[in-house]
Amino acid sequence: MKKFAISTLLLLAALTLSAQVREDFKPASTNQPGHQYPMVNSQRMVRAQISAPDAKSVKLDIGGVKYEMVKNSEGVWTGDSAPQDEGFHYYQLEIDGASVPDPGSLYYYGASRWGSGIDVPAADEDFYALKNVPHGETSEVYYYSSVTGSVRHCYIYTPAEYKKNTNKKYPVLYLQHGGGESEHGWAQQGRTGIILDNLIAEGKAVPFIVVMDNGSDVYGPNNPRPERPAQGQRPPQGQQGQRPQGGRPGGFGGFDFAGPFRTILEKDLIPMVEANYRVIGDAQHRAMAGLSMGGMQTHAIALANPKLFSWVGIFSGGVFSKEEVDQTPGFRENNKLVFISFGSRELQNRFGGAADPKPITEELGKSGMNTVFYVSPDTAHEWQSWRRALYQFAQKLFK
Amino acid sequence: MKKFAISTLLLLAALTLSAQVREDFKPASTNQPGHQYPMVNSQRMVRAQISAPDAKSVKLDIGGVKYEMVKNSEGVWTGDSAPQDEGFHYYQLEIDGASVPDPGSLYYYGASRWGSGIDVPAADEDFYALKNVPHGETSEVYYYSSVTGSVRHCYIYTPAEYKKNTNKKYPVLYLQHGGGESEHGWAQQGRTGIILDNLIAEGKAVPFIVVMDNGSDVYGPNNPRPERPAQGQRPPQGQQGQRPQGGRPGGFGGFDFAGPFRTILEKDLIPMVEANYRVIGDAQHRAMAGLSMGGMQTHAIALANPKLFSWVGIFSGGVFSKEEVDQTPGFRENNKLVFISFGSRELQNRFGGAADPKPITEELGKSGMNTVFYVSPDTAHEWQSWRRALYQFAQKLFK
Repeated sequence: MKKFAISTLLLLAALTLSAQVREDFKPASTNQPGHQYPMVNSQRMVRAQISAPDAKSVKLDIGGVKYEMVKNSEGVWTGDSAPQDEGFHYYQLEIDGASVPDPGSLYYYGASRWGSGIDVPAADEDFYALKNVPHGETSEVYYYSSVTGSVRHCYIYTPAEYKKNTNKKYPVLYLQHGGGESEHGWAQQGRTGIILDNLIAEGKAVPFIVVMDNGSDVYGPNNPRPERPAQGQRPPQGQQGQRPQGGRPGGFGGFDFAGPFRTILEKDLIPMVEANYRVIGDAQHRAMAGLSMGGMQTHAIALANPKLFSWVGIFSGGVFSKEEVDQTPGFRENNKLVFISFGSRELQNRFGGAADPKPITEELGKSGMNTVFYVSPDTAHEWQSWRRALYQFAQKLFK
Repeated sequence: MKKFAISTLLLLAALTLSAQVREDFKPASTNQPGHQYPMVNSQRMVRAQISAPDAKSVKLDIGGVKYEMVKNSEGVWTGDSAPQDEGFHYYQLEIDGASVPDPGSLYYYGASRWGSGIDVPAADEDFYALKNVPHGETSEVYYYSSVTGSVRHCYIYTPAEYKKNTNKKYPVLYLQHGGGESEHGWAQQGRTGIILDNLIAEGKAVPFIVVMDNGSDVYGPNNPRPERPAQGQRPPQGQQGQRPQGGRPGGFGGFDFAGPFRTILEKDLIPMVEANYRVIGDAQHRAMAGLSMGGMQTHAIALANPKLFSWVGIFSGGVFSKEEVDQTPGFRENNKLVFISFGSRELQNRFGGAADPKPITEELGKSGMNTVFYVSPDTAHEWQSWRRALYQFAQKLFK
């Protein structure tokens, strides 16, 4: 009886929903070549489809919600999500209890896995659209780290003019991903190279180099992974604005934000970059930014070594307070910019009653620091907030 | 009764098989970070595992065979394949009729899809192992093609010394993937950068640049995709040696091997590379090679424009016959090397009674051409054959 009532409710809900669905679905830009599904409509609903003739239940799992899909007579399942925010979202399919990537989508690393991703069209998507402008290069770089005792992998973006102006030296941004992500995040779903190419082509940003390394996997023979790996203790990278925002980051599984990654930066990564690329090797031409966990790393490293970076950005990962800056000799003198950003939905649903980051940043600004507080409209703790943050931050850098 | 008989047979087969299985399985090198499954044992059997508590049937689909997996009391399915060849294999899981990537593996493009891949350890895997040697860079490059009217994506490998020797110019190899694959193939599962880094570090290859473009997607506004796309007509990229090998390639869905891709090479790709990289821009310092369909393209383009490349390689994709060379003015005078390779299993199971490629190549060699005929031991139409072919070919190039 209870089952029947729930089924009826679901049916009614489905009917109500379907009555409102605009049938203008188009294949997502993030689909595999030649694939029609998943699709997105003008309400930003995601429609997934998969052939699973013998399955009992197939669900679309996106934004922390699982949507039932429905089977047709050919064994093909189709289902729609509720409207999603603009921009990029991780998702999976659940087939008879197995959580798997959708064979229709391209794959991205996030939520501690390689899995499906979908880009929901956005009103401002032009700034990260691939265009016929001069393109820089995003290179896969391997380098040996004495800190980890292993060969590490990172991405390095060089602007289009880098190859031509062979006597010019460039400033560098070290740009970090979030928890459950990796160096692939900014290079792929972050669209860093495309955003920078477009900004530089329009004259809105000065050309600079971007280094994207892995701030989570800081382990190797010289720095063994702890018995209870930090990886497993980290909260999954969700899509909704439920992250720490203000003040000092707390637990995060005992992960040391200014620990091994700071040492890798100081001893291995920055020296490798400055030895191999035409780089202006001083703090005034060196920036660090990161999203979420990467922002917490930026925060911790900038306070631990205030002479390393003169330009710092935290995207959805906390703030620098006036107290912190005042307690850190050299920070104020060396710093050129403190950039703080959040998705607007993160500010609405503040995590655990954390302090409002806006007045904290304004107080720092009034004390004489150059601060920018940016809010991404109608987005949460998700990539569209961070693409927009990079777009804003890049225009302020090294000027 | 029939069902019972089949079940009994399957059970007996499973018991027979399991009696022989060595329980020394280890996680594959191609697994997602932190994932234990899939595994491989010393018999080169692949063991997959996935949680699918509500599924009726889960299969491991590898090498053209589907292996039944078995559910335990926690709803976790496990299953073993027969022994596989050494090297890289595409695979999928089938869950209640849905063919999906294994959430445990990294993903690769092949068989016309992004899906699971697994590297089976090989006796000679040292040549493609990541080591602490000077590393070149594999860069993602976007360029505008007048032929397609679109911005195209390719990978360009530059050797480690490229950044240091800023006055030195380098030879270039244009290296093409197979049918159902893309520019990602050589950059990822082909391990091109790693193979070259190791060869150059050991002094076995001269440093050169490698350009990996997409030879299948040659379409865009200026060259619209045909109504019945060639993509869909191509045979899937299998793992067993069932490919055309000798003589002129036949149908392949009407795909023109020396068509749009030749024009892209001549008008857009080679000029872009020679304008942006320090390259010796003559045929004597320009090579082309490809696997399977990419070999057929190399064959067709080298015969259509014999002055473009002085060094040519066909990996599992045909031969150059003495007749073809004699009928192509300029080919013999311009050519420095004709390299032909196959997996040994391809030669054993020759497709459709095609001519034996070895005597054809020997005849060409006796006529005064510099030829190499290489056979990869105990491999089929698969990546281990092509990694080994590249390893051999690279040592002969530009010397």
